[in-house]
Amino acid sequence: MRDLTQETITDYIAASFETSNKNRQTQLMTGLVKCLHGFIRDVDLSHGEWAKLLNFFYQVGEKTTGARDEFTLLSDVMGITSLVDLLAASKNPEVTSASPLGPFYLENAPVIPQGGMLCRDDEPGTPLVFKGVVTDENDCVMSNALLDIWHNADSGLYSNEDETQDDMNNRGRIYTDEQGKFVVKTIRPQPYSVPMDGPVGDLLKAFQRSPWRSAHLHVVVSAAGCESVITELFFSDCEYIAIDAVGGVRADLTHEPSCYNTERGETLFVEHHFRLRSLAKEPQNDENSSV
Amino acid sequence: MRDLTQETITDYIAASFETSNKNRQTQLMTGLVKCLHGFIRDVDLSHGEWAKLLNFFYQVGEKTTGARDEFTLLSDVMGITSLVDLLAASKNPEVTSASPLGPFYLENAPVIPQGGMLCRDDEPGTPLVFKGVVTDENDCVMSNALLDIWHNADSGLYSNEDETQDDMNNRGRIYTDEQGKFVVKTIRPQPYSVPMDGPVGDLLKAFQRSPWRSAHLHVVVSAAGCESVITELFFSDCEYIAIDAVGGVRADLTHEPSCYNTERGETLFVEHHFRLRSLAKEPQNDENSSV
Repeated sequence: MRDLTQETITDYIAASFETSNKNRQTQLMTGLVKCLHGFIRDVDLSHGEWAKLLNFFYQVGEKTTGARDEFTLLSDVMGITSLVDLLAASKNPEVTSASPLGPFYLENAPVIPQGGMLCRDDEPGTPLVFKGVVTDENDCVMSNALLDIWHNADSGLYSNEDETQDDMNNRGRIYTDEQGKFVVKTIRPQPYSVPMDGPVGDLLKAFQRSPWRSAHLHVVVSAAGCESVITELFFSDCEYIAIDAVGGVRADLTHEPSCYNTERGETLFVEHHFRLRSLAKEPQNDENSSV
Repeated sequence: MRDLTQETITDYIAASFETSNKNRQTQLMTGLVKCLHGFIRDVDLSHGEWAKLLNFFYQVGEKTTGARDEFTLLSDVMGITSLVDLLAASKNPEVTSASPLGPFYLENAPVIPQGGMLCRDDEPGTPLVFKGVVTDENDCVMSNALLDIWHNADSGLYSNEDETQDDMNNRGRIYTDEQGKFVVKTIRPQPYSVPMDGPVGDLLKAFQRSPWRSAHLHVVVSAAGCESVITELFFSDCEYIAIDAVGGVRADLTHEPSCYNTERGETLFVEHHFRLRSLAKEPQNDENSSV
């Protein structure tokens, strides 16, 4: 007969996830059991409180559809997405940091030429020239690397949440030249609120948490022989830089844009050096593929 | 400009849940952030592994309907439901332990008289007489206390998962007499598997975990002036007593049934003393209402 007590139940459940041939999965599940049981003990969680937490998860499940990923939003605002990024980055401090993909990525953005434009000719906003170079971590230039770039409009909306924009407005893919360089024209992105019409929005409201994401350019960079990176570039003068809702801001991803007067009027310049991890190195974790 | 690093992100996110007037909620959310971040660091969680865990939550959400509560099942097999029960019980060791409600409870079971029968006359199974007394924690008898009792059939199925059974088969509510006593006739319940046709079932299969619940009688006991208890009674000779899938077994809830030959043939007797916490005591936690 088993007499389960407060003292024995955690080891009992943790042991139930032990198998002879699944060492990593066992490590994950026993770790999760011990962590969650530890939290419940630390805060002396009541029935009513646990029922509220379970009900919150039901609501997250109900809000999640193919087009709306409330679980990832929850992971984002809990800082989990960023922490997993930072852990991966800490193993390769010499390469460009990762930052959340976000929910607005679209596949198959148009391929644009060097110097091409991401947005419509009549797009309002501050002109921005984004240029840079892609190398591996030894600073060997990567020609024919692909940058997939997207950002929101001056209204704060992405093309896929705004019917008045073309489907692929402010989106484009560009290949680096023989020197590993690229340059595109676009407009400065704007800060925006994470979606607040679901249970995660209610959570943020309940804690008077800022829902604002600091303005950013999304970039996924891939090159033959290198590990791809999903990342974001931030602007040091954005008012939300210090309170980004998902903790996405990193020092190596933050720029103070240069500002010049050009024929387009006041134009910002952002230049970034993307350093990719070479796949020739022994993989440090089989599960770490980021794209 | 904020430079979020592996070292600073947990405090940054935890601080975002601090408010001036929500101390308990802040304690819960900052505790959860620190616990989950600690787990992710401890196991050095990769992007791929986190994506798998998120996908598991999507599937749990997809499987959950009004009639099928996969989140509670997950809580059950992670031992969380039982741990919350045990924490509450540890504050009141003199009263009957709680044990999970399970997914098969139905409201408004028929009220039956003293000595009444829970099951149909033609029900196969070993006859069982279940009797006992309800008191408060000072052993003052509680007359007119209500016991809501339900269990599965000899087939292992509950009435609400088996079309061949009457809706309220093996279910009934009985009031205690002036001495706080009750007696009902029924059949011995059987062990059964938790639902295995969803993602939680897949999880149990992946770890070769036993899905079996040790046979039990479900009982919810309530009485005027007392805190209700949701509980289960177990049989010491059940083959799954030591490996109950949800960790529901407690020493004070486990019986070695007496066995006698009666006019119904071999009949089991189970006798239990339910001790309820008196509400006259100062509530220890406003959120602890269990029913």
